[in-house]
Amino acid sequence: MKRIAILTGGGDAPGLNAVIRAAVKTAIQVYDCEVLGIRDGYDGFVNPGGIFPLDHTAVRGILPRGGTILGTANRGNPFARKVIRDGVEVIEDISGAIMESIRQLNLDALIVVGGDGTLHIAHEMAELGVPVIGVPKTIDNDLGGTDYTFGFDTALVTATEALDKLHTTAEAHHRVMVLELMGRDAGFIALHAGMAGGADVILIPEIPFHARSIIEKINSRIERGTTFSIIAAAEGARPVDGQQQIARPGDSVYVPRLGGIGQVVADLVSQGCGVETRVTVLGHLQRGGSPSAFDRVLASRFGAGAVHAAADRKFDCMVALRGEAVCTVPLAEALAKPKRVDLNGDLVRSARDLGISLGD
Amino acid sequence: MKRIAILTGGGDAPGLNAVIRAAVKTAIQVYDCEVLGIRDGYDGFVNPGGIFPLDHTAVRGILPRGGTILGTANRGNPFARKVIRDGVEVIEDISGAIMESIRQLNLDALIVVGGDGTLHIAHEMAELGVPVIGVPKTIDNDLGGTDYTFGFDTALVTATEALDKLHTTAEAHHRVMVLELMGRDAGFIALHAGMAGGADVILIPEIPFHARSIIEKINSRIERGTTFSIIAAAEGARPVDGQQQIARPGDSVYVPRLGGIGQVVADLVSQGCGVETRVTVLGHLQRGGSPSAFDRVLASRFGAGAVHAAADRKFDCMVALRGEAVCTVPLAEALAKPKRVDLNGDLVRSARDLGISLGD
Amino acid sequence: MKRIAILTGGGDAPGLNAVIRAAVKTAIQVYDCEVLGIRDGYDGFVNPGGIFPLDHTAVRGILPRGGTILGTANRGNPFARKVIRDGVEVIEDISGAIMESIRQLNLDALIVVGGDGTLHIAHEMAELGVPVIGVPKTIDNDLGGTDYTFGFDTALVTATEALDKLHTTAEAHHRVMVLELMGRDAGFIALHAGMAGGADVILIPEIPFHARSIIEKINSRIERGTTFSIIAAAEGARPVDGQQQIARPGDSVYVPRLGGIGQVVADLVSQGCGVETRVTVLGHLQRGGSPSAFDRVLASRFGAGAVHAAADRKFDCMVALRGEAVCTVPLAEALAKPKRVDLNGDLVRSARDLGISLGD
Amino acid sequence: MKRIAILTGGGDAPGLNAVIRAAVKTAIQVYDCEVLGIRDGYDGFVNPGGIFPLDHTAVRGILPRGGTILGTANRGNPFARKVIRDGVEVIEDISGAIMESIRQLNLDALIVVGGDGTLHIAHEMAELGVPVIGVPKTIDNDLGGTDYTFGFDTALVTATEALDKLHTTAEAHHRVMVLELMGRDAGFIALHAGMAGGADVILIPEIPFHARSIIEKINSRIERGTTFSIIAAAEGARPVDGQQQIARPGDSVYVPRLGGIGQVVADLVSQGCGVETRVTVLGHLQRGGSPSAFDRVLASRFGAGAVHAAADRKFDCMVALRGEAVCTVPLAEALAKPKRVDLNGDLVRSARDLGISLGD
Repeated sequence: MKRIAILTGGGDAPGLNAVIRAAVKTAIQVYDCEVLGIRDGYDGFVNPGGIFPLDHTAVRGILPRGGTILGTANRGNPFARKVIRDGVEVIEDISGAIMESIRQLNLDALIVVGGDGTLHIAHEMAELGVPVIGVPKTIDNDLGGTDYTFGFDTALVTATEALDKLHTTAEAHHRVMVLELMGRDAGFIALHAGMAGGADVILIPEIPFHARSIIEKINSRIERGTTFSIIAAAEGARPVDGQQQIARPGDSVYVPRLGGIGQVVADLVSQGCGVETRVTVLGHLQRGGSPSAFDRVLASRFGAGAVHAAADRKFDCMVALRGEAVCTVPLAEALAKPKRVDLNGDLVRSARDLGISLGD
Repeated sequence: MKRIAILTGGGDAPGLNAVIRAAVKTAIQVYDCEVLGIRDGYDGFVNPGGIFPLDHTAVRGILPRGGTILGTANRGNPFARKVIRDGVEVIEDISGAIMESIRQLNLDALIVVGGDGTLHIAHEMAELGVPVIGVPKTIDNDLGGTDYTFGFDTALVTATEALDKLHTTAEAHHRVMVLELMGRDAGFIALHAGMAGGADVILIPEIPFHARSIIEKINSRIERGTTFSIIAAAEGARPVDGQQQIARPGDSVYVPRLGGIGQVVADLVSQGCGVETRVTVLGHLQRGGSPSAFDRVLASRFGAGAVHAAADRKFDCMVALRGEAVCTVPLAEALAKPKRVDLNGDLVRSARDLGISLGD
Repeated sequence: MKRIAILTGGGDAPGLNAVIRAAVKTAIQVYDCEVLGIRDGYDGFVNPGGIFPLDHTAVRGILPRGGTILGTANRGNPFARKVIRDGVEVIEDISGAIMESIRQLNLDALIVVGGDGTLHIAHEMAELGVPVIGVPKTIDNDLGGTDYTFGFDTALVTATEALDKLHTTAEAHHRVMVLELMGRDAGFIALHAGMAGGADVILIPEIPFHARSIIEKINSRIERGTTFSIIAAAEGARPVDGQQQIARPGDSVYVPRLGGIGQVVADLVSQGCGVETRVTVLGHLQRGGSPSAFDRVLASRFGAGAVHAAADRKFDCMVALRGEAVCTVPLAEALAKPKRVDLNGDLVRSARDLGISLGD
Repeated sequence: MKRIAILTGGGDAPGLNAVIRAAVKTAIQVYDCEVLGIRDGYDGFVNPGGIFPLDHTAVRGILPRGGTILGTANRGNPFARKVIRDGVEVIEDISGAIMESIRQLNLDALIVVGGDGTLHIAHEMAELGVPVIGVPKTIDNDLGGTDYTFGFDTALVTATEALDKLHTTAEAHHRVMVLELMGRDAGFIALHAGMAGGADVILIPEIPFHARSIIEKINSRIERGTTFSIIAAAEGARPVDGQQQIARPGDSVYVPRLGGIGQVVADLVSQGCGVETRVTVLGHLQRGGSPSAFDRVLASRFGAGAVHAAADRKFDCMVALRGEAVCTVPLAEALAKPKRVDLNGDLVRSARDLGISLGD
């Protein structure tokens, strides 16, 4: 193994730099292998200055830092790029140029750190002959094939701290506080943070909610003399009867504008329970910041593991955590079945045991 | 001094419990004086169960906790209360009932912990003969007569942590990140947090901003190769030409819906600089959580100081921090001149020295 | 199931209160079962006031708090108690009294939350017919039968924050900083924190260290121009040639006095490398504080799971985390094989890949 | 003003990098002035590579980081340096070489960031004609002439977090926990952190303590049924009858070995009250880590202020915070009277009001 490259794609996640650092250190120290950094995702292959060497100095001090020293591109299709030609914006297919650049670099492996979208592309490239190794990255923990992805624990810490803060204010003011959290398709952040932060209601995409259930829960607390409540809602949570309930007649603009289920739920509660209700959208704060200790260790293991996988020529695979060990799984397998909250698992059961309403 | 009472009013602020704890401990230990807690602001005087004794046990363990064990009421006029009479909602004047309740309690002093609104009421009551001592409380640090109020430092810590988190994501994604912070009339949180969090643009109510200035600042960074920027905007920040610029023709619903200057600024930048821009509204997170060490100490000094002021019969005054000492100032004096960012002070000058644009 | 009891034993660990809260809520809500709290470990069975009812009110607000509302006793043998009889201190066997008390309470289950020592007693009691369910608790993560115990992640966070703090000071001062961490028999905290905190040397009980290896590592960094280094040492780390190397001739008092391997290593480095070296012993700070989000969730699942196990009459078992699921394992099995760092696992391999010296 | 230099001396303090960043930005942007960095304190003037240019790139991203990019030297006399000459270690006077180096650099100002020792040297150099501007830096807050120094607030936060952690463990285990904090001559950290962390006893250098007072306080708590206590002790705290009480007959080695008053106090309590007592020495953790928001702002103001002072030719002065404004004070004045806890101020009075024993 003489030369490998590494790129980071998709949304930001705490731990990206730890992956890069571990990969660079492992490649150089264990395999005496050159490492190239590709800037801003796949774009780096065709952009001027998009490819540059990574050595010990380049990765010094980046372990505790959020973000990625490689930059990232966060758009739908990395092969389609908007360019201005003759004064007109056109979509250019750069897949050929990227593949050509990769071929010329004569890479022994390309380590791709990214989420569902980025890894799908990686898998396609692997099928075209690129020696790809994936590293799973998602705040939402919704990638198949691995127990955990780095970034999730840090997001969970941030979300739990937010719930802790809202708790005392809710209690002092006799209010219902709604916290909208990330999780478009999977509710791991909301479920874990809701349990850790003592939420009374947790809404996740996997369980369509009944407005009535939420209202009953809040009202039963009020009847018992508890004048405040906390609701943790994943952004992808939806009512059982879908869009209708959210977009109210004559106000169709409403939901997209506010961008969130948080406000919808707050309105439901405010009207249904007659209590003051406030919503906070945590948003990008969940993606940033210094990675947690757990994420730093997991990301470091993933970075080192990816380089070993490259040396073992386990291409078209990604590294994964299974139980206590890092291993590799075929990308096709990991991507085939995205991860969702197990509705029959003990985690969901425990949430119910604690008296938390899941809206069903 | 045989009996005093304490109440907390207005919005939540970290440190309220520390004030209560210090007041109770000082009253009992130093003056062997009974302390009554008044629940939910002035309402407690007329609500059933609204008055209850506070002793050592009641305040045990509350020092590090946000919120207030006394609860608070957060509405415009504490003397006007909505009641249902004959099936109709009417506004009832309860000021007489409150005053009567206070008279019957035979209080040697009433300690009122609150912001501008709550202290104004306290001052009016003092003029009616109630032996009031005020304790200034505001997240925004916009109360006159005191160098600092408790709660501000904790809000500042929360805001700075948020900026730290946004920073790495902004850099990785080549984005402009706007953080909307508290500060309706005074920009202390945005100014301090912006400086502490390395913001490139800080917008405060005291300095009406030019859209052009912001755009020029962001563009000059882009020209120098810095593809990300951070903007800290106080919720009360406004453009020089006022409402017009914010509410765009044919879209009048827009701003109130989003409730914030953050989105307005994000739109300005997105359109003016052609870069991806995201907004985060920190909201209530600034009011909650365990108070910082600074706020715990200041709140404790204020609580103890208020009881001493009561013993010294310095009524119609509030405790205040001046330099390194806690003293008392007449409420009338403190309320006459709310505090604003000193545009000629070294703090604002330092912000400019660091290359931060204040939008002017 | 009509009546269960719960006690906490051994050293403090963040998450104990979360276990208690989840057990109480689950027992009452799911099984309509009475819960008794036993104060200060097994002692509560014989002490006056040592047994008291636990309901919703008793566990309100304790989720984010460290410590245990039940108290704990932290001494070798819970059945042997020092008492003064006729002015003389004698050891009294209270095992009979404890068993009698348990019999009289007519418990359907006794939930015992504790580490190795506490669970060994629990297992003995189970063999005597007490319907015991164990909940594993150890900062060190050294209990068999479960992937993780609650408390470990919080200790890891605290240890990593400490390393982050030492890092910048080490760099500024060109010093070697040694951090002594918990882990008498297992090095999980030191290994994980060392990796998360960017340590250069990690010493764990599982790998006896050569002074020479440490010195060579530090010196090689100095030769490359890096004038600072960080060493994370588990308290149970030992040199290959054992006691001799630690206790130097003519200075035999030295080591026990300082109580730690940290100072021993610091002396080795200071003398062997000629650089200023400082040691910090983190000690009890690793046991306290608000549990991390991870620990709050795990502890809650354990608490709920223990009550379900009681209902399912899985006595003489403890709850455990295996992969992503909470299950039960026989106490005998869990206690038979304490957990140690897997020297052939990818975690240790990754540490070496990153260039970290493990002292061997 | 064409060229200035900046150096950092003495122990590490969070905020040093913020000072450097602000000074560099202000000098370049406001005065178009060149800035030189001097590496490792005064040594940089004579060491090879000890002088290097500082520009925007050099200070990018350092605001939130602890330590100092300039490095520091932490030894008694910067003018005396150990060197090996003819195989023998001799002390060399390098003051002439330093002065000559400064002269050749043709500096318009030399900004010296440091504590008591470093600023004393600065003052001496100023008297020899070097255009010195000081920036006060001390964790202990014991420098005269300024209300606060940067670094103190961060140390306070760290110390308070430690007390919060010890609190729950002390309560769960019915123990007395002693936390030894920095403060050789001034007890600001122990006093503030003790108040913020709910300590029962606070020992500071300014108030010699009676063992009897401490024991009485702990015992009175035990009599009231409170089985735990927290003691915050500044490292410089001493008993009224001095050394005798600490170094016990036949055990003279004891105290210096353990290096601290913490263990002494723990022994006193353990023997005097018959309760389990543990000591934690926070040590260097107080010096490191990312500066708090307060310290980042103050350090930035000091850095900018120092450059303005240089432009205004206010040599032999240091910047200082007085009330809410940054100003300058003559070094001679600031150094003449180090700052100590005001025993008659409201802070000490408040501590007593809260029932805290100060050992007297």
